[in-house]
Amino acid sequence: MAADCTDPSGVPFAELDPEILRSQRTSLKWTRFPEDVLPLFVAEMDFTLAPVIQRTLIERVQASDIGYLDGPGPLAHAFADFARTRWGWEVSPSHVHLATDVATGIVEAIRAARPNGGRVALATPTYPSFFEMFQELPVEVVELPLIVEHGARAGSGTTTLPATDAARIPTPGPTVRLDLAAIERAFAEGIDVFLLCNPHNPHGLLHSAEDLAELARLAAAHDVFVVSDEIHAPLTHEGEVFTPFAPLAAAAGALAVITTSASKGWNLAGAKCSVVVAADERANAVLHRLPPETVTRTSILGLHASVAAFTEGRDWLERAIAQIEANGDLLADLVARELPGVHYTRPRAGYLAWLDFRDAGLGDDPGSEILHRARVALNNGKHFGAGGAGHVRLNLACAPDTIREAVRRIAAILPTPQEVSR
Amino acid sequence: MAADCTDPSGVPFAELDPEILRSQRTSLKWTRFPEDVLPLFVAEMDFTLAPVIQRTLIERVQASDIGYLDGPGPLAHAFADFARTRWGWEVSPSHVHLATDVATGIVEAIRAARPNGGRVALATPTYPSFFEMFQELPVEVVELPLIVEHGARAGSGTTTLPATDAARIPTPGPTVRLDLAAIERAFAEGIDVFLLCNPHNPHGLLHSAEDLAELARLAAAHDVFVVSDEIHAPLTHEGEVFTPFAPLAAAAGALAVITTSASKGWNLAGAKCSVVVAADERANAVLHRLPPETVTRTSILGLHASVAAFTEGRDWLERAIAQIEANGDLLADLVARELPGVHYTRPRAGYLAWLDFRDAGLGDDPGSEILHRARVALNNGKHFGAGGAGHVRLNLACAPDTIREAVRRIAAILPTPQEVSR
Ligand SMILES: Cc1ncc(COP(=O)(O)O)c(C=O)c1O
Ligand SMILES: Cc1ncc(COP(=O)(O)O)c(C=O)c1O
Repeated sequence: MAADCTDPSGVPFAELDPEILRSQRTSLKWTRFPEDVLPLFVAEMDFTLAPVIQRTLIERVQASDIGYLDGPGPLAHAFADFARTRWGWEVSPSHVHLATDVATGIVEAIRAARPNGGRVALATPTYPSFFEMFQELPVEVVELPLIVEHGARAGSGTTTLPATDAARIPTPGPTVRLDLAAIERAFAEGIDVFLLCNPHNPHGLLHSAEDLAELARLAAAHDVFVVSDEIHAPLTHEGEVFTPFAPLAAAAGALAVITTSASKGWNLAGAKCSVVVAADERANAVLHRLPPETVTRTSILGLHASVAAFTEGRDWLERAIAQIEANGDLLADLVARELPGVHYTRPRAGYLAWLDFRDAGLGDDPGSEILHRARVALNNGKHFGAGGAGHVRLNLACAPDTIREAVRRIAAILPTPQEVSR
Repeated sequence: MAADCTDPSGVPFAELDPEILRSQRTSLKWTRFPEDVLPLFVAEMDFTLAPVIQRTLIERVQASDIGYLDGPGPLAHAFADFARTRWGWEVSPSHVHLATDVATGIVEAIRAARPNGGRVALATPTYPSFFEMFQELPVEVVELPLIVEHGARAGSGTTTLPATDAARIPTPGPTVRLDLAAIERAFAEGIDVFLLCNPHNPHGLLHSAEDLAELARLAAAHDVFVVSDEIHAPLTHEGEVFTPFAPLAAAAGALAVITTSASKGWNLAGAKCSVVVAADERANAVLHRLPPETVTRTSILGLHASVAAFTEGRDWLERAIAQIEANGDLLADLVARELPGVHYTRPRAGYLAWLDFRDAGLGDDPGSEILHRARVALNNGKHFGAGGAGHVRLNLACAPDTIREAVRRIAAILPTPQEVSR
């Protein structure tokens, strides 16, 4: 299968060997930990940049075109076209604003809508940097844990899945969803901002249209400003449905903005360009209060890379998604075979795999054990808010051999089922 | 003379014809105004990017190295080495922090040092975006006009310099300096932050070491946090002396940070990378309170371009400065010959020329007249704070013919001296 020989750019996976990448790349993924640590943590892909994006960037450099931006320019139309053809979401280009990255978009949108801060709620466990962003704002944080149902899980209730043939059938992951009853209670008590992660990091969860419509209704009823972070949406898996929040917010009369970018889908995190999109005219009035400097804080190189991604990078994206799905299958199989007691939530969007190690016998802090003893860097679930402890997040956007090696290393430090049950 | 045939990258000036640049570049300078407007406003150079920076950026793109930054990495040493060899300023690499750009560095440094805001003072006229940055903060702005002395000016006191041979001898510009007495009074009344522009935009003014030492002493005495914006310092002209503020602040015990970047010197405004440097350990403790996201908001492409600039871009910088000086000479000559009543402050650093049109008979708003009637975009002095009205700022980092054309267009709308004196 072609998908198992080359990355989405057609580069042989052998060239994505971590040792090679470490000699070529200088980003966080390759500099944070010592050489003997295999990095599957931060949301950067190992895949080679899409050729069309490389060409675009090189062309801009050769034109000495590295001055200031004056607005979203061609990106507004490029994003609107992508949103329409991919998700049926009609974006008015005049509702598209720039920000350095999604994190900046979130912080500045909240400042614009709620200059005095207030109480901000979000569903946990979730992306740890959200908590860092909130530290930049005069806000109190309210964590509303997701509902996680293990009902369908084979072997549920036992903590000692033995590594027998029976256990090799990948178990369906838990069902995860927003706790709308808890959200309603919190909104009734007074919430100023809800940060929706759509799709939800770390589970790769695609919220249902029904849940999102209900969230929009509650936000409108209780005057809650919703920021919907849709950065992982371009990476929705084949056959799955992503529901953009903006049309539902507009229909319900909820004040909402969407923050997103090409940076996850096409691996452009360091290029620094994102969009903040108003759900309706009222939200657009809020975004017109963004600091004027927000525009010039966005990179012209990032903008051109993003335009290339949204317009000419769709084939590459399909191949990337196919590879992520294949890697997800591989991980499911490896977990079932080699990691007894570990429960895997299969992402339906994005390349982040959420692994529950609470039954695996690695103690309270499996992320640290895996880092220090297995020499594999994953994201430690304890930083993901309520419900995250005992979990780790693993990055699937790499060569299959990298996943195999990570699992091999982790398996080597896992206690045997016999040890666990003792 | 070579300097009059090619730009600092060796590209013939004919290729920097504004019509050609408009077809190649997409930045603010080339998109804000209609095609028939000649752009000499925003601080972007027309010069071609230094070849070493082009190569560096292309190499990073080809390595798919566009992930997150985890800190200043090689930039800390590259900047420290540049500061030491160029200005004799010993920077501890551990005092170097990242920010998206200088504007972000200023805003975040003030937030870190003065979370509750307060009263912020600055010398005017100055860079208009400073006022936009202050809108992002809970601060009250105190404008302290520079002292501008026209003593040495030939023809001073007359408003009708006739375009005779006598007037063709370029007049020395006014002497400009900080009003330290006014600064002391303001500090005594209560100032929380002083934003120093060093060198000062728009005059290209290099503050004297004595003035800066006195400013540091006053800041220490009155507990004023000083942010010194030194973005134009790499472009200090031949034979002129730039005095970094940090060593003086450290010696005086003033709490100070320096914001700067390679973005003016090497024309990288859209690459989004700057440094915030602590003057001493106490200031470094303040910078450790910068939001952690500040680092990931900085572009990895911008960082590598900046490292290349500070380490391998020095010859290019010398050539750029030589060309800016030649263009400054050209403008002085053209103003004397063709723009009667206009007084030119020759920059001693940077490529921004400050022109006083108050005696030129173009009315209260010469910037708008020049834009609308002469079809030349300059920065309108009325946005530069107290003392700016009646002035315009002109960008010298272009082909000499661009300056000639701008002056020709402006001269065509100027009233004759006879008309002015009527
Ligand atoms: C849900 C989510 N939002 C935001 C980000 C960060 O986006 P940016 O780098 O554009 O700030 C990430 C990065 O992984 C993410 O997973
Ligand atoms: C004095 C001064 N500071 C800051 C800036 C803006 O710097 P940046 O683009 O890095 O925010 C400029 C741009 O011209 C400037 O002249």
